[in-house]
Amino acid sequence: MNGADSLCDTLLANDVRVCFANPGTSEMHFVAALDRKSDMRCILGLSEGVVTGAADGYARMTDRPAATLLHTGPGLANGLANLHNARRARVPVINIVGDHASYHLALDAPLTSDIESLAAPMSNWVRRISSPEDVADATEAAFRASLSPPGVATLILPADAAWGEVASAQPLKVSPPAPLAVNMDTVREVANAIRNTPGEAAILVSGAAARADCLEISGAIAAAKDVRLFSEVLLARMERGGGRVTPTRIPYPIDDALQLLADIDVLVLVGAPEPVAFFAYPGKPGRLVRNGCKVLTLAKHGEDLKGALEALRDELGVKPSQPQRRTITDSDYIVPFGHLTEDAVAVMVAERLPDNAIVCEEAITSARRFFELTAAAAPHDYLMNTGGSIGCGIPLATGAAIACPDRKVINLQADGSGMYTVQGLWTQARENLDVVTIIFANRAYAVLHAEMRNVGVNGIGENARRMMDLDHPAWDWVSVAKGMGVDAAGAHSCEQFADLFESALRRRGPFLIEAII
Amino acid sequence: MNGADSLCDTLLANDVRVCFANPGTSEMHFVAALDRKSDMRCILGLSEGVVTGAADGYARMTDRPAATLLHTGPGLANGLANLHNARRARVPVINIVGDHASYHLALDAPLTSDIESLAAPMSNWVRRISSPEDVADATEAAFRASLSPPGVATLILPADAAWGEVASAQPLKVSPPAPLAVNMDTVREVANAIRNTPGEAAILVSGAAARADCLEISGAIAAAKDVRLFSEVLLARMERGGGRVTPTRIPYPIDDALQLLADIDVLVLVGAPEPVAFFAYPGKPGRLVRNGCKVLTLAKHGEDLKGALEALRDELGVKPSQPQRRTITDSDYIVPFGHLTEDAVAVMVAERLPDNAIVCEEAITSARRFFELTAAAAPHDYLMNTGGSIGCGIPLATGAAIACPDRKVINLQADGSGMYTVQGLWTQARENLDVVTIIFANRAYAVLHAEMRNVGVNGIGENARRMMDLDHPAWDWVSVAKGMGVDAAGAHSCEQFADLFESALRRRGPFLIEAII
Repeated sequence: MNGADSLCDTLLANDVRVCFANPGTSEMHFVAALDRKSDMRCILGLSEGVVTGAADGYARMTDRPAATLLHTGPGLANGLANLHNARRARVPVINIVGDHASYHLALDAPLTSDIESLAAPMSNWVRRISSPEDVADATEAAFRASLSPPGVATLILPADAAWGEVASAQPLKVSPPAPLAVNMDTVREVANAIRNTPGEAAILVSGAAARADCLEISGAIAAAKDVRLFSEVLLARMERGGGRVTPTRIPYPIDDALQLLADIDVLVLVGAPEPVAFFAYPGKPGRLVRNGCKVLTLAKHGEDLKGALEALRDELGVKPSQPQRRTITDSDYIVPFGHLTEDAVAVMVAERLPDNAIVCEEAITSARRFFELTAAAAPHDYLMNTGGSIGCGIPLATGAAIACPDRKVINLQADGSGMYTVQGLWTQARENLDVVTIIFANRAYAVLHAEMRNVGVNGIGENARRMMDLDHPAWDWVSVAKGMGVDAAGAHSCEQFADLFESALRRRGPFLIEAII
Repeated sequence: MNGADSLCDTLLANDVRVCFANPGTSEMHFVAALDRKSDMRCILGLSEGVVTGAADGYARMTDRPAATLLHTGPGLANGLANLHNARRARVPVINIVGDHASYHLALDAPLTSDIESLAAPMSNWVRRISSPEDVADATEAAFRASLSPPGVATLILPADAAWGEVASAQPLKVSPPAPLAVNMDTVREVANAIRNTPGEAAILVSGAAARADCLEISGAIAAAKDVRLFSEVLLARMERGGGRVTPTRIPYPIDDALQLLADIDVLVLVGAPEPVAFFAYPGKPGRLVRNGCKVLTLAKHGEDLKGALEALRDELGVKPSQPQRRTITDSDYIVPFGHLTEDAVAVMVAERLPDNAIVCEEAITSARRFFELTAAAAPHDYLMNTGGSIGCGIPLATGAAIACPDRKVINLQADGSGMYTVQGLWTQARENLDVVTIIFANRAYAVLHAEMRNVGVNGIGENARRMMDLDHPAWDWVSVAKGMGVDAAGAHSCEQFADLFESALRRRGPFLIEAII
């Protein structure tokens, strides 16, 4: 066997059974090794942003890493934007980046580049394999690094490490270390701070603390102790709907965020960093908490968030009983009619959301009402763009559908960001994934229009318009999707949209609806 | 005025009048400044690979930099693969990468990343602007760096440097230093080596030495002194056809390349590095010249290549007269008929090539015969993928068409690589660019099939096939192109193809032909 076999065997021994791939010439021995492993599911993406974004979506739904296969520095580079989002989502990914044979690098052949320099900013861990004998150890280390704490591990595989012979050996099944135990001193400090600031304390959750079991605990604390419950603005995955506890999301617009946090004296972080402004604006603060607010970390990403919340609950003497739940009001679901709007789409999708759906949402200006409404919808998981690098929606939906073949995936997708990684539709077609993509076709980078106003520019001219508007020509999403093998149709009215969405829910396999708004 | 105005004014003062852009929120002040400059042409690309690849194509045809506008680390990352090709093409590009306000970086907001680490591998020069007052100086330095020697310059523009006020000042017009003068000792050494190895010396050209004027000189030397004339395997731009001197291209397949160079005792480099194998293969050498071959550099990229060739010609006593020219034979242009093949497309396009066309070719397995045939076709420029990072063809054609609005651009495009940056078709539609895209729809990464055989794997299984074949479903390129606003049609037969190509040549504006082979 060769180093490439050793790599595959080590991945499989650790239950890494999905490889999102866009291989190139220097990975031919690795491809040949994958070809010998029928337990490994190889899924081709036609651009690397699809590959890495799908690995992100897979990890969000399984809490396990998939492998990616990327071709040298440029192939990795194409995948970095969605690795940025994966890193910000704090999920496990194992990138295998093929490189030239080690002795070939000094010749500076055309595809040579500094892969370490490219990988470092979007990876939590990087290692170059030194020899065929090093492959198993390096792969075990990558697996461990991807899970403790969860993050992006990048492994550089030189061609000669892949093709070199190694002794056959039983691959090692790695046990990642258990999460760090709860620090009871911290729990008592947080409990005291909450007791001492009635009505002016808040818990901010993210990561695993945004799952239903943790939310049930923090919801109980919030209800019993007059503590507010917030979630990070961009969440990797939140379990919502169906009567689950729903925190208030920190708003994206800075003025709204400042207002929400204006009277908070104690902010308790659970799996979340301190909230900061997405961008700096002249004359506005970067930190969102008010001056003097005490920011305490109950538990960090990679620690035992549920254990920490349980300990806090017990320390505060809260009975595991009475969390606050979001209830639905009749007026939320007034049936929209006529001309299609973003909010009408939101109402229709929220009302019809199938049980246990996975929602991938990358529609920052179009889906605000949708997020509100779905708090009271059927139970579902909600996945967002965590890093602000646009082009993750279609790939995330692809990876989530691979991870959860029995669940319906609904991708609410802004048109501008969808264009970045539209090639992911082809992977959905090839793998017959059960994904309904809804394009909000407003034919603009609408968020940029809003941000231009935020920086004080109101009337815009030709140059700015041509950089922010996506009309002239407008994409025909139905034509593009069909060209990539995904059946599709457009909706101009609420009635058309409702019909299309209902029929998409009844069928299996990918479908795209262009909501022309 | 603010820093962003200062940046625009400095670019315009130096005749940088085209900005390929994909802006984001942190560049709003820069977008507003561009909006105030009607002399700046802003061209939107729907993914950053389009933006940077177009800047590459523009530079190849003008020998001048365009600006790119990229949004923070992830935006730059998306553009790196085509910057890799631009760097390998050794052409000038000025990237403007927007970043957070400098004081915001410490907060590690979601879009924060290490831009310098990302930029370095694909840039010849990187600088972060330190303040509004630093903008003009940094932009002048970037302009100079992009031209001396030509290469990729990356300028990081923090938002507070863009929005901060600066005193109004006359922007400086920068004079890049003239190329280094010819070293006459080197010329004499090369001339002696050529004289001493009759029949076994060769000149290898690239860069500016692949333009018609330089080729005329090296062709005269070759004819008079029994010197062979080679060109690099991947050329940024070669002036060919119409009776111009045509070097023999170093073949991509390693065995062919080794054979071509097997009897060369002296290799003279003019604007080219020493040729090396594109990839390492077990048991094969990386250097392509034989052991003992003397490799001499007459002049490097950025030096006066034409002056050096003239000096060598004079030193050798060659009259500027008798270069060898490629002649056409009747059999080259036998009219193909019936079922469409790659070679039939090659014959039909070469025969009908309009005068002064710009050919962008990214079809490594499909266009080999085309390259041979066009040596004797109408005069044209031939642009290739220089760095091996696929997905440059559509963007290169886009940038070349912006640079040369009066010339027909023909993009011979493999389907697999075209899928990476297919979004560039939209820019061609929006700008009504005169580009004919010909897709070789073989529905596979054909080069990978060949490379699998090269590494000794003949029968392939399900996993490998699913990573190298692009069928199930096949892209309908006509549907995808039309969806992005580019008119298109498919050809199954030679007759259909000939009709479509002729009609595409008669019209202006973008058109795509899917050659189903």
